[in-house]
Amino acid sequence: MQIDFWFEFASTYSYLSALRLPGLAAKAGVTVRWRPFLLGPIFAAQGWDTSPFNIYAAKGNYMWRDMERRAGKLGLSIHRPDPFPQNSLLAARVAQAAPEGPEMIAFCHNVYLAQFSERLEISDLDVIAACASAARLPGDIIAQSQSDENKLALRAATEDAIRHGIFGAPSFTVDGELFWGDDRLEDALDWAVRHG
Amino acid sequence: MQIDFWFEFASTYSYLSALRLPGLAAKAGVTVRWRPFLLGPIFAAQGWDTSPFNIYAAKGNYMWRDMERRAGKLGLSIHRPDPFPQNSLLAARVAQAAPEGPEMIAFCHNVYLAQFSERLEISDLDVIAACASAARLPGDIIAQSQSDENKLALRAATEDAIRHGIFGAPSFTVDGELFWGDDRLEDALDWAVRHG
Repeated sequence: MQIDFWFEFASTYSYLSALRLPGLAAKAGVTVRWRPFLLGPIFAAQGWDTSPFNIYAAKGNYMWRDMERRAGKLGLSIHRPDPFPQNSLLAARVAQAAPEGPEMIAFCHNVYLAQFSERLEISDLDVIAACASAARLPGDIIAQSQSDENKLALRAATEDAIRHGIFGAPSFTVDGELFWGDDRLEDALDWAVRHG
Repeated sequence: MQIDFWFEFASTYSYLSALRLPGLAAKAGVTVRWRPFLLGPIFAAQGWDTSPFNIYAAKGNYMWRDMERRAGKLGLSIHRPDPFPQNSLLAARVAQAAPEGPEMIAFCHNVYLAQFSERLEISDLDVIAACASAARLPGDIIAQSQSDENKLALRAATEDAIRHGIFGAPSFTVDGELFWGDDRLEDALDWAVRHG
């Protein structure tokens, strides 16, 4: 039983899922493959040059309040990054380059907490290097993340997301099914348990 | 403890909430005010001339599959209306004109089931008249719904929705808070219980 967890570092609701997922997946006995991808190219294909939360003001206002409520329930703080969305390319490349395992997950958590709790800019190389180091990723992970091969791998991951019908983050794929949004995390795990 | 339930007859997820709400609200001891409104003017203000589920193909494909899964869990069938979205103006005017009470709720259920289960067109006067009659609404409710006063009341309801920050349906308002989407129904009821 395995699900793919598709996340974008700049995505607010991906933050919640990234923090909630390890505990819930362990409880359900489901293996998770963490799959970083970029929403930028997907949004651009829809004619958007920024997050739809910026384009559609009422939806954006709602999202920030909803995040406050939901993060609050989880005991997480939610700071509104400036600028929003943050440039997540470096973080995504590092996550793509990182070997699967608890260090990679720790790195992802560190990036989300840096951005949404500690008010740091995740486009900043020093911030990402600190996140990687604290997660005990390999010392040369930043350099690895900048290889042509890794850049292409991240681009291929985004194309793979599109092939799966993904249009937002977080998303979960399992057994040919797509689930979109932090509020579908439990449904995705449940599907994996029942059909995996 | 009261919540306002904002619904659009053409909205797929409003169908689920409309059917789920009476039982859940009764269990929670929460009073519900049923508030029909129109998404058309709200979408038009965002530059959309149809549902975003038609404009954004990947999101639309996802929604129909998600509806199948969620309706299936509830034991409801989900048929894709043609055209989608249906013209919901007449149904909304009748709901606006109807006195609050179980007959009005029955009318709403009848309209949703006609549209999404029985494959009927809710722009059809005969369909809406049958929904009203089966719900035991007043015999002249169709005529009442066409009064200038009632047309203006529905327009005012949509403007009131916009003032509440509403941008989609279903939405729930309680205690100054907005909750959007069928998957926030339980949260809205919970807020009413804790803060109402």
